[in-house]
Amino acid sequence: MANIPGEIFLIVPQESHDALVQAAYEHRGYGAEEAAAATKMCSAASRHGIRTHNALKALHLDELFGSGSGGCVPGAEIEVVESKFKATQAWNGNRKLGQAVAVEAMETCIKLADEYGSGTVSVDNAFHYLWGGGYVMDAAKRGYIAYTNCTSTLAEVVPFGGKFPTLGTNPHSWGFPTTDAVGYPVVIDWATSTIAMGRVEQFKRENKELPPGCGVDADGNPTTDPFKIKSLLPFGAHKGYGLALLNELYGAAIGGSMPTLRGHATEAKAAGEKSTSAFYFQVVHPEALSGGNFSQGRSQAENITAVMKDILGHGNEDCMLPGTIEATNAAKCEKAGGLLFSAAEIKAFAEVAEECGQDASAWTPETFPVFES
Amino acid sequence: MANIPGEIFLIVPQESHDALVQAAYEHRGYGAEEAAAATKMCSAASRHGIRTHNALKALHLDELFGSGSGGCVPGAEIEVVESKFKATQAWNGNRKLGQAVAVEAMETCIKLADEYGSGTVSVDNAFHYLWGGGYVMDAAKRGYIAYTNCTSTLAEVVPFGGKFPTLGTNPHSWGFPTTDAVGYPVVIDWATSTIAMGRVEQFKRENKELPPGCGVDADGNPTTDPFKIKSLLPFGAHKGYGLALLNELYGAAIGGSMPTLRGHATEAKAAGEKSTSAFYFQVVHPEALSGGNFSQGRSQAENITAVMKDILGHGNEDCMLPGTIEATNAAKCEKAGGLLFSAAEIKAFAEVAEECGQDASAWTPETFPVFES
Repeated sequence: MANIPGEIFLIVPQESHDALVQAAYEHRGYGAEEAAAATKMCSAASRHGIRTHNALKALHLDELFGSGSGGCVPGAEIEVVESKFKATQAWNGNRKLGQAVAVEAMETCIKLADEYGSGTVSVDNAFHYLWGGGYVMDAAKRGYIAYTNCTSTLAEVVPFGGKFPTLGTNPHSWGFPTTDAVGYPVVIDWATSTIAMGRVEQFKRENKELPPGCGVDADGNPTTDPFKIKSLLPFGAHKGYGLALLNELYGAAIGGSMPTLRGHATEAKAAGEKSTSAFYFQVVHPEALSGGNFSQGRSQAENITAVMKDILGHGNEDCMLPGTIEATNAAKCEKAGGLLFSAAEIKAFAEVAEECGQDASAWTPETFPVFES
Repeated sequence: MANIPGEIFLIVPQESHDALVQAAYEHRGYGAEEAAAATKMCSAASRHGIRTHNALKALHLDELFGSGSGGCVPGAEIEVVESKFKATQAWNGNRKLGQAVAVEAMETCIKLADEYGSGTVSVDNAFHYLWGGGYVMDAAKRGYIAYTNCTSTLAEVVPFGGKFPTLGTNPHSWGFPTTDAVGYPVVIDWATSTIAMGRVEQFKRENKELPPGCGVDADGNPTTDPFKIKSLLPFGAHKGYGLALLNELYGAAIGGSMPTLRGHATEAKAAGEKSTSAFYFQVVHPEALSGGNFSQGRSQAENITAVMKDILGHGNEDCMLPGTIEATNAAKCEKAGGLLFSAAEIKAFAEVAEECGQDASAWTPETFPVFES
């Protein structure tokens, strides 16, 4: 959900947001620790302007595919699979809350990278971790190079040249420690489809044509008519297709089953197949990469700064970096002294409050000050 | 260079090709072992139909930027940088021949992955390794998950929204062991620009308009006129931009200098900056990923097969995989009993033969049988 020009935002103290989200997860049966991990990531998503992956989306997903339907199991424990390898771990997530698993996986990757130079954690039987960018951003802020991919819940994307959706929107996320160079980490984080299905719905509501390259009709023919679009196209033709395929291959190697059954628990069970997602995390220690021989005796961080300056120089000064929008949003929240939500979002939080027996009247748009940008 | 419809190919015995390429590299001062690594990769490129990265291109690049101008140093030795990390190595390539360094780096990654689950080698002071797909294909054929990226010699690509080229066409290559599933490894291998600069030249020669999204004019305005294109655009807008940027960040962390000076040895030297490329290689052992819990008691390989079948099922049976074209070309060469070259390419080989004092008259199109496809 992009910002609507002129949309008004209200300032919600982070403590109020966090207390409500924590209570909502606990109300659904999650333990305090896993609820806290989810709350932390919801908060971070809102702070960085990731409105598609905020607490409302997270709780809605949990209702649809998670604790509401057995796709996610409150209180589940992670099992580390026995392995002869020292710098990698494979986990059985046992359908534990995705954000809690992801936070712990990234911590483990960092520990392994501190010793081995790189650390990798693969997670089978996983449940949606929401915002991949959040985990790599966190690691990059702490000075590490981080990567994650996962298999999306639903298969909505056709292979390049195909007509039936057999791939997820399968995101990839990379974080690079560039805080010294530009003030924030570079965070590359996107789905492998050109657009999300939610965007097709938005174009339907607005009765507008989509740009080319977004989707195909039931016969696999590209169309810009949102009412005819049955499936999504990978971004960048065969290039995005390769990237979407990659997540399916990682997922298959980890323990995931057919993409067309993923997220369809009943059909999968009937077919004797799993319906869970898989996660892949990796952290590399930047010192492990360094040849120690930088121009003009620069340190590694100074060298990264020099290179970034070259890239955004020569007339490119107004270019954004992947991560600029997120950093700008975080600065806005910092200035506001709270998280920013629209009136509609605040009304949705009132419903969350009601669900877990809290005072819903505390969640009216009038309660919160308007953010003057 | 794509195949021209109706183009005739001649069958060159691999031994003749390899003997000539080996001799050409040795004639330029390279040792037998490094020449053999280069020859092996040139051969593999031709066998898999990678005409843009065959021996002719490799030797031409060596002339322009390599041993011809000091960018590459025949007989140079790789130095392993001292490091506290166990699963990663950083190398000083000392401008050794790129293909020789890459072959050795991939071997080291495999050895590390056998012990640690993953193995990573970063190379500073590197010289063009030509075809990234070849190294990951090789590792994937041996059962490993492999990845490489490198910084391109020249900065030809503008950042998303920019006007001056400060990024290379910076390729990424992934190989995945899918031979059991589909008969060959999935090899994802492409530049981060929509098209290569060579393609712009081709459209100029043919006086044809380019598709949108390929390049910008001197002011950064997108144009489809090949005569107005000054710089290339990343593929997939901000998504490809992120991927191109990633290689620059890896390169900067490894030891590379400004992208706008890379490949410009004289200017770089005057500015006190390095002009070399950087390589990054990684191999992950597939067993390191396995949760050991596949549907219906399948093995990991069987599970990958089941997932691939699902992706290419449901009406998608005619879809290609990344790697299909390469495998099809290799099958063609197998059938032909040699490597396939056009008459123009064979004439270029005659020039190579002449350069290294071999019998050039052995390299006429009439010498070789025509391939009947």
